Amino acid sequence: MSKIAVVMGSTSDLPVMQKAIDILKGFDIEVDVDIVSAHRTPEKLFEFSKNAHTNGYSAVIAGAGGAAHLPGMVASLSPLPVIGVPIKSSNSIDGWDSILSILQMPGGVPVATVALNGAKNAGILAAQIIGSADKCVLDKVILYKEGLKEKVIKGAGELKNKAP
Amino acid sequence: MSKIAVVMGSTSDLPVMQKAIDILKGFDIEVDVDIVSAHRTPEKLFEFSKNAHTNGYSAVIAGAGGAAHLPGMVASLSPLPVIGVPIKSSNSIDGWDSILSILQMPGGVPVATVALNGAKNAGILAAQIIGSADKCVLDKVILYKEGLKEKVIKGAGELKNKAP
Amino acid sequence: MSKIAVVMGSTSDLPVMQKAIDILKGFDIEVDVDIVSAHRTPEKLFEFSKNAHTNGYSAVIAGAGGAAHLPGMVASLSPLPVIGVPIKSSNSIDGWDSILSILQMPGGVPVATVALNGAKNAGILAAQIIGSADKCVLDKVILYKEGLKEKVIKGAGELKNKAP
Amino acid sequence: MSKIAVVMGSTSDLPVMQKAIDILKGFDIEVDVDIVSAHRTPEKLFEFSKNAHTNGYSAVIAGAGGAAHLPGMVASLSPLPVIGVPIKSSNSIDGWDSILSILQMPGGVPVATVALNGAKNAGILAAQIIGSADKCVLDKVILYKEGLKEKVIKGAGELKNKAP
Amino acid sequence: MSKIAVVMGSTSDLPVMQKAIDILKGFDIEVDVDIVSAHRTPEKLFEFSKNAHTNGYSAVIAGAGGAAHLPGMVASLSPLPVIGVPIKSSNSIDGWDSILSILQMPGGVPVATVALNGAKNAGILAAQIIGSADKCVLDKVILYKEGLKEKVIKGAGELKNKAP
Amino acid sequence: MSKIAVVMGSTSDLPVMQKAIDILKGFDIEVDVDIVSAHRTPEKLFEFSKNAHTNGYSAVIAGAGGAAHLPGMVASLSPLPVIGVPIKSSNSIDGWDSILSILQMPGGVPVATVALNGAKNAGILAAQIIGSADKCVLDKVILYKEGLKEKVIKGAGELKNKAP
Amino acid sequence: MSKIAVVMGSTSDLPVMQKAIDILKGFDIEVDVDIVSAHRTPEKLFEFSKNAHTNGYSAVIAGAGGAAHLPGMVASLSPLPVIGVPIKSSNSIDGWDSILSILQMPGGVPVATVALNGAKNAGILAAQIIGSADKCVLDKVILYKEGLKEKVIKGAGELKNKAP
Amino acid sequence: MSKIAVVMGSTSDLPVMQKAIDILKGFDIEVDVDIVSAHRTPEKLFEFSKNAHTNGYSAVIAGAGGAAHLPGMVASLSPLPVIGVPIKSSNSIDGWDSILSILQMPGGVPVATVALNGAKNAGILAAQIIGSADKCVLDKVILYKEGLKEKVIKGAGELKNKAP
Repeated sequence: MSKIAVVMGSTSDLPVMQKAIDILKGFDIEVDVDIVSAHRTPEKLFEFSKNAHTNGYSAVIAGAGGAAHLPGMVASLSPLPVIGVPIKSSNSIDGWDSILSILQMPGGVPVATVALNGAKNAGILAAQIIGSADKCVLDKVILYKEGLKEKVIKGAGELKNKAP
Repeated sequence: MSKIAVVMGSTSDLPVMQKAIDILKGFDIEVDVDIVSAHRTPEKLFEFSKNAHTNGYSAVIAGAGGAAHLPGMVASLSPLPVIGVPIKSSNSIDGWDSILSILQMPGGVPVATVALNGAKNAGILAAQIIGSADKCVLDKVILYKEGLKEKVIKGAGELKNKAP
Repeated sequence: MSKIAVVMGSTSDLPVMQKAIDILKGFDIEVDVDIVSAHRTPEKLFEFSKNAHTNGYSAVIAGAGGAAHLPGMVASLSPLPVIGVPIKSSNSIDGWDSILSILQMPGGVPVATVALNGAKNAGILAAQIIGSADKCVLDKVILYKEGLKEKVIKGAGELKNKAP
Repeated sequence: MSKIAVVMGSTSDLPVMQKAIDILKGFDIEVDVDIVSAHRTPEKLFEFSKNAHTNGYSAVIAGAGGAAHLPGMVASLSPLPVIGVPIKSSNSIDGWDSILSILQMPGGVPVATVALNGAKNAGILAAQIIGSADKCVLDKVILYKEGLKEKVIKGAGELKNKAP
Repeated sequence: MSKIAVVMGSTSDLPVMQKAIDILKGFDIEVDVDIVSAHRTPEKLFEFSKNAHTNGYSAVIAGAGGAAHLPGMVASLSPLPVIGVPIKSSNSIDGWDSILSILQMPGGVPVATVALNGAKNAGILAAQIIGSADKCVLDKVILYKEGLKEKVIKGAGELKNKAP
Repeated sequence: MSKIAVVMGSTSDLPVMQKAIDILKGFDIEVDVDIVSAHRTPEKLFEFSKNAHTNGYSAVIAGAGGAAHLPGMVASLSPLPVIGVPIKSSNSIDGWDSILSILQMPGGVPVATVALNGAKNAGILAAQIIGSADKCVLDKVILYKEGLKEKVIKGAGELKNKAP
Repeated sequence: MSKIAVVMGSTSDLPVMQKAIDILKGFDIEVDVDIVSAHRTPEKLFEFSKNAHTNGYSAVIAGAGGAAHLPGMVASLSPLPVIGVPIKSSNSIDGWDSILSILQMPGGVPVATVALNGAKNAGILAAQIIGSADKCVLDKVILYKEGLKEKVIKGAGELKNKAP
Repeated sequence: MSKIAVVMGSTSDLPVMQKAIDILKGFDIEVDVDIVSAHRTPEKLFEFSKNAHTNGYSAVIAGAGGAAHLPGMVASLSPLPVIGVPIKSSNSIDGWDSILSILQMPGGVPVATVALNGAKNAGILAAQIIGSADKCVLDKVILYKEGLKEKVIKGAGELKNKAP
């Protein structure tokens, strides 16, 4: 069965990254969570990244803020798709540093970047990657999108009723 | 067999997007290419996006510049992973508009964004998505990354030899 | 009689967009309000936009935040003037993403963009568009501008009186 | 019959603004063109703006670069819809100054801002404003949009034929 | 005797602009304060600016936020030195719009721009302009700068004493 | 008689700063030009700045690029009005560094900042500062502004004649 | 024995700069702290900077905000390595002015710039500079980095235990 | 004797980085140059960085562009001072990505960042770091700075002579 790894540079990133974990659990996808710091535990970064594809992961979600090197370094060391979540951490300049140091990877080493603090979308994207080859998960994604639509339709209905 | 759709808003985007096509062909992955403009052919956008997953695609690569709505609108209509390529087109403000209007998607509808003009990386990411469930493509990605390494090592060797 | 449609991507945009509704009501212009999400209800977007001009609207005001595709997609599907309101929503990067993804539309498909969170001005602009062919509404706009002037003159007078 | 005024701060803005003139002539809409500088001919600015609505104009298109005050000052003095074209002139910082000094108008005095150098879209928007109350012009806008679509479809066809 | 005019677009700008008034009073320079809105009271703007030099002012300090046209329009109409204060008002995008629409004036019409919310420095600059031809005011500026120095030296001394 | 000092950090800044010199000569104002580098000749900077007001200057125009410290350091050491010209030099990031390091001076030490590369306006501003107390120079400024107006009117006339 | 000077433009910078002092004391490195304002005490700046290398300092850490000239001016006057700390002070535009006016020094006069408010890293960098020639301090740096690693590993362990 | 390592991510960075090499050779400091790519040769990055301090280097100069992870990853793995050179490479967004992903390192892992393309200053900073403990190199830095001064003085003299 498919499994996703969610890693982040610091426990302080957990409140943002939790949304990726929750959405994956909602899709009944197995998730492993770990703290891996590119700058403070580079050996663990190597160990984790080199073995991610043989350890049964389908993709890696990596979140980091400021000069965010974690997603790019995992992508450097693993052949798996790596989803990067730029985090607007306390040491970030309005998130611009986080975004640019994750997004602007050189030719040959992509990181699939989502919106600032967009961990929820990172989880959905991981599900879509699994769903790309797994009809059952794809159907769950289709259902999820139906749910988004219904919520908007319901909100629109309530707005209509409120208006005099 | 897996297949990738590469769409772009205008034929003027082809020189940038060709790199995605080339890299996918290098991985022996089937590619279909089309012009789909969110703003000028919205009906074609709907038609294409609604049916992409039943038409056998594993993922969609969408490139656009300026107020770039194509990747996000495909992602709105398709359950497949959508890879967005921000293009620094002539009407773009140094690429910032292209990046932000592709990257900053709302919760629920992710676009896997790559670097500005990063069509090559979009191709590799699509291969990695297929490789995530297809051992044979994964091995090709591993080989590709070995090739990147060797090229750097070779360049370093030449530099050493040149120095007196 | 002239009628304006005010649409927005989410009920959370209502506090900002309410200012457009209020100003239009102040000009005695009929307003219809609806929630239409480009990313979550694309079919409703199509339905609404394709028929806006036959449904009696003179213009559409569309507000959205982040990767804001709603105004541009309405403009893609409708021949009416579309006024875009960039919203500084919680998932926006200081509003830059909202502004650029509404303003930087490609040649052929304009969106009349107003200031960040400038829904009040969107309402006035819609009134001016109607007033462009309707002398009675134009006179109301002239009166409204007189009111702005008087308020400033009054403030200046109070300032003069306060000073010793 | 409807008439549009196109004004700009300097003759050096003409190459950009010509696209607005051309598109309006393509829609058979009468256009008057003039040089009006907010900073060098403030009296002419007043004269022009105060009388634009009694001189038979349906809307004003104003283009300017750098600290671009022309569109906002016309909007201050005229009850007509004013369309602002930010111009990336030689003294502009990548166009950011032009965009922000046109877009960010205070509550009460809107300027309908289009993309950087987007004079073509300014022309189309002016046609849409007229079309909002003039069925004949609205039909021309609908036809124009059909033309955009056909051009993209044709380009897509040629791309298909080229591919081996 | 020399006299400075301090004008601003709205009474809400007064808390920022008060610092210019206070510093000028501290230099015993006469100050007149008024509300003049480029966008809401354009006629008053003309009246004030055309006559500022014959009304005995040595310079004008003008503060405004957002698409800030007041300083530039005063400079357009008056031969006096105009000092512009960009204000980070509630409708401003972090102050960038205020700064750029005041600073980036075209060749021929300068505005002496100070830092964001830098009304205090606008007051000092006005004093320096008067001091440029008035030895008595120049001496006050020299004294003022001595005071700045002493305050820093005193702070440094206290820091030294605090340290163990 | 009044005299202006024009200083710049490097001879490579001369092509930009020449416009300030030319405009001042056009106003028959005496100009002294010198190279003073804050970073490479700090002693000369001190010497020059400390004595500028006793050496007969009415104001100092200082131009610099990148981390542009020259205008601010002159302002730190002289009681005269200092006009700063941000230069888009080859080592500058699109001019943003030059602008911000000149404009954003702390409270107490103003620099009258003009537009990027706006040396011409720096010259006019210096003339206006002298004109503030010298009726003869003020009249020249008034004449200069008349000239600007006539040039625009003439351009507008030619545009009218060209049009069929 | 090695000694580091920590200077800042104002006592209000102390809360940020204290982290540099603390980290240096943690490495048992002697620190002298002083207030030196480039703009308000230029003579003290000269005195301090000219003599820093003969007064026994190994490096200077200088912190400043806004148009931050202190680090660059110390670097102009001293042959020692100068570490610049951009401070997001109250008068700074999100820190961009502080960063650019410290980082973008011209060729010949480097400032070793650290992250916005990164005084802690400035202290570590100063220790590394001393450690570059002092084996005992280098060993302390190595130990410090081990401590960082252990803290992350411990956090990762706690995360694992918390998860069900 | 002291020795500096200069590393860069690609041979295409050599034209920029050569200036660091040249300046160090001018100071008679031994330099080793190598290509080390964080993203394409991560094992070599580890090998190089872990051993840099035992291999006799006093400091490492690392240059990279785009999402520039090389300087930060060397700093993560080595206790030596690491000087980062942001490079405006072809895949960089005006250099902002290079700057932010090098400068904004998290607490604990500093990179001494110099200006965009500022390799020359990186070389001088490395010399200053050695000079911090080596009187002979410090004297060379003092001499170098004298040379900068003389060049400016000479330029100023030529300017004076040219003027009529």
